[in-house]
This record gives sequence, C-alpha cells and structure tokens, in this order.
Amino acid sequence: MKIGVFDSGFGGLTVLRALLRQIPGADYAYLGDTARLPYGAKSRATVARYATSSARFLVEEEAAEFLVIACNTASALALDAIREAVAVPVLGVVETGANAAEASSATRDVLVIATAATVESHAYAAACAARGMRAIEKACPLLVPLVEEGWTQHPVTEEVVRIYIGELMEQARAAHLHADTLVLACTHYPLLRETIERAVPQEVRVIDSAEVTAQQVAARLEGAVRDAGEAEVGEAEVEFFATDSVTKFRDLGTRFLGQAIPAVRLVDLGG
Amino acid sequence: MKIGVFDSGFGGLTVLRALLRQIPGADYAYLGDTARLPYGAKSRATVARYATSSARFLVEEEAAEFLVIACNTASALALDAIREAVAVPVLGVVETGANAAEASSATRDVLVIATAATVESHAYAAACAARGMRAIEKACPLLVPLVEEGWTQHPVTEEVVRIYIGELMEQARAAHLHADTLVLACTHYPLLRETIERAVPQEVRVIDSAEVTAQQVAARLEGAVRDAGEAEVGEAEVEFFATDSVTKFRDLGTRFLGQAIPAVRLVDLGG
Repeated sequence: MKIGVFDSGFGGLTVLRALLRQIPGADYAYLGDTARLPYGAKSRATVARYATSSARFLVEEEAAEFLVIACNTASALALDAIREAVAVPVLGVVETGANAAEASSATRDVLVIATAATVESHAYAAACAARGMRAIEKACPLLVPLVEEGWTQHPVTEEVVRIYIGELMEQARAAHLHADTLVLACTHYPLLRETIERAVPQEVRVIDSAEVTAQQVAARLEGAVRDAGEAEVGEAEVEFFATDSVTKFRDLGTRFLGQAIPAVRLVDLGG
Repeated sequence: MKIGVFDSGFGGLTVLRALLRQIPGADYAYLGDTARLPYGAKSRATVARYATSSARFLVEEEAAEFLVIACNTASALALDAIREAVAVPVLGVVETGANAAEASSATRDVLVIATAATVESHAYAAACAARGMRAIEKACPLLVPLVEEGWTQHPVTEEVVRIYIGELMEQARAAHLHADTLVLACTHYPLLRETIERAVPQEVRVIDSAEVTAQQVAARLEGAVRDAGEAEVGEAEVEFFATDSVTKFRDLGTRFLGQAIPAVRLVDLGG
C-alpha cells in the first residue's frame, strides 16, 4: 500500500510524521509544491489547478493508492476537484480535523486556529456547522514565521501564543461559546503544541490535525496495510518530491518530519 | 513629471510616502505586483520576467518618465533587465541604499538587515564592496510578518528586534567589523525605525532606504520637477495599481503609505 501525501510546502511533513508512526507498514510518496506556494492568497480556480496537477502526479506517476491532502488551503478550496481528478480515495485535513472535533467536544463549541487564508475560507466553520457544532476561527499569522525561524521553544513564541489564545478566548466569550476543544488547523502548529496547551484553559482539549489525520487514515486502511503497529518506523519506503529548491526542502523539512530527509527529487508540474 | 514606483507588494509604499514628502510637485503611478508576490523565493529569470512586464506597464501604459524600483529582490536580481526593457531612467533601492551607506560611513564598515531572499542574493554586500566598503548582512524573517500583523509598537516586536540586532552585532564583532551604519534594506522596516534605533549601539546611524531613495530621486530630477519643496503633500496626482485583490491592497497599503489610499485599479499582467 502506497500513500500519497500532498502539501503546498513543508508543513504537511508533520502529517507524514504522524502517518509513519501510526501506519509504519505502508510506503509513502510526499509532494511539496514549493515552487507555487503559498496557496493561501490565490484564487479557488488557481488552487484547484495546482492541487489537481499535484494529486495526479502522486497517483499517476508515483502509483499512490490513497491520497492525503495535508494542505489546509487545498483541502478547503479544492477537495472536490481533486476527488474528480484521481481514481483513489482522498482524505483532507479539514474534514479529519472536524471529525476529531466532533468526537472530542461535549459542548459542541469548538475553537479553531489557522492561517489567515484558511480562516477567510471559513472551511472549518462550515465543516463544524455540518456536524451540528459552532466554531470560532482565529487567524494567527505570526505562528508560521516563528516556526520557520526555528523559534519553537522561545519566550517570544510563548508570548505571541499567549496573546493570540487570549484574544481567541475573548472572542469566544463575546459570542457566548463554551468551547472545550481547540483544533490546530495548520500543519505548522503541531510544532507548537506544548506551548499552545500551556496557554489554553484547562478544560480545552487541543486537537493536533496531523495526529488525527493519521488516525483516520489508519482506520480507513486497516486491513490493507499489513503489519501496521508491528513494523518499526524506518522500515517504510518514503520518497520526497518538491517543485522548487530540493536543498531548502531538505533543510527546512527535517524540522517538520523530526528526522533527516535523505533525498528529494525535483519535479516540474508546469505553471 | 510622472514618477513610476514599482514593488512586488505594499512595502514600496514607504518609498512613495517619502517621495510624496520630498517631491510633492511630481505625479505618481504605483504598481504592486501582488498577484505574483513574493518574489523572494523565485529564480532570477522569473523575477526579471515579472519585473520587466511591471516596469513596461508603468512606462508604456502609464507614461512614467522616471522609474523607482522599490522592491529589493527586483533591484537585486533584475535591475539590468529593467533598464534594457524601458527607455526612461531607472533607480533601484539597492544602489540608493549603498550610496547612502557610502556617504554615511566613516569606518567603511556597514551593517545590513533585510529579508532572507535579499541576504541570500548578497546584492548589498556586492554594492558595498564596489564602493570599497565591507558589509555584514543579516536576514530578519520575522520583521515583515510583525509589521503586517500591525505590531509596529509592540513589546514582542521590541524583543524580536533586540534579539536580531544582538545577533548582528555579534556577527560584526566576530568578523572584526567596526560598523557605524545600518541599512534598513527592506521596504517594511521603516515602520520599525524607532524600535531599531533603540536597539543599535549609539555610534551606529540607521539608514532608511525609503528616505534616501526619495532624496536621490529628488537630486536626480531637480530641475524637472517644478515647485518641489513648495507644493504641499496631497497636491500630487497619485494612481495605484495592483495585480491582485484591490481591497487588500487598500487596507494593508494605508499603513505603509501613512494616509488613505483612495482607489486602486486592478491590472492583469498575465502569468
């Protein structure tokens, strides 16, 4: 079983990391569309065009039998287009995050932190509403740059998280929400999970969308993957593809994957 | 006299702001190539293609008689290509910054802070070397997001600046530089000028590349612009163009320009 993992950049490597831990028996092909990032500021039509060409590469060239869309923007704007473009099952991080919130929340009130683009799409609010839940979404635009600067354990990051979470809780209070669940709806945020957990009130459970995506992929694949849970991490065959500088991918990516990235192949998907 | 000002985004509005103050008698056309930003991570060929099409628009469609390249990446990678593409005088922020450093520095040792892309191009180090000076360049990737978050007067920004400047001074000490000048080599940084001035040692003069660019344009145009210095800001006719969301341009741009942006026209420059 080969699982394709797609993101516009490096962030999706946190999802791959969780997949390797939970489904070590599978093989993986990871594509970061780094030449065309960031997707966040682009139109729905452009994101759909980029995402479907990336999905097709993983399925048609690399023979992925299952596709994980680890990119929030692509999941929010292009999931239907991707499902139409490829003949394998596709799971996106927005729906897995909303599923996990549904399983976690007793109050049916959910908090979501994400990039500005994801918040502006209101994809999580819509997915929560479809599950009978209310959601408050907050953009935290400094968190991605802080993670990319490597300041994951840094007093400045601690302070920025404290400010953002404070504003989020204020928003929730003003809207009379009694939230018991916070979804980390950006693939960079799992690197800040402990800091975020320290900043939220005790009754709020933090949901790492990378982790819950891996769990839901595992549940969907169960029988198909032999030895899952028995094989050790490192046995899986993992290939990495990027559409821009492979050196930068390797350097930055290692931090997200939590282990060294051996080789990255450059792919040209056109404009 | 109509002056064209080009940037990949909003940052160049700090240069326009300085131009309006120093040459209030001129007219202006500002183009932000917001659909294709950020230029920073793109190859020299792509940046040259984007920048020359933008320059041609300002000269051929908008009849600019003088062109200011307010984008560090375009100035670093594409100034020659732009000069070949249009028949009017062109001035870029890298050369104006280096000129100002030359005029300021007695020790001939200069510090430069910029985005990662500008630092990686080593355009300022080369421009300083061509003027017989040594330069230490430091990337400060968190400053642009902090400015865009609106945290220009914020304890977190104060702390981040203190850390970056501390690291820069450490680098300078290790390289045995006796710097007396710091160039703000990113068009976002003028919004942090006071914070940066508080963080540098007393003997270091801070050069705002927006301000010095306006001074050098004024010096070059002298006679051509009537009433410069006499007319009041606000008399100039200023047109704004963007290649993506004009709403976002107006909202974010106001902060950089320091005054309201009345109308923005959407331009399609193609891929």
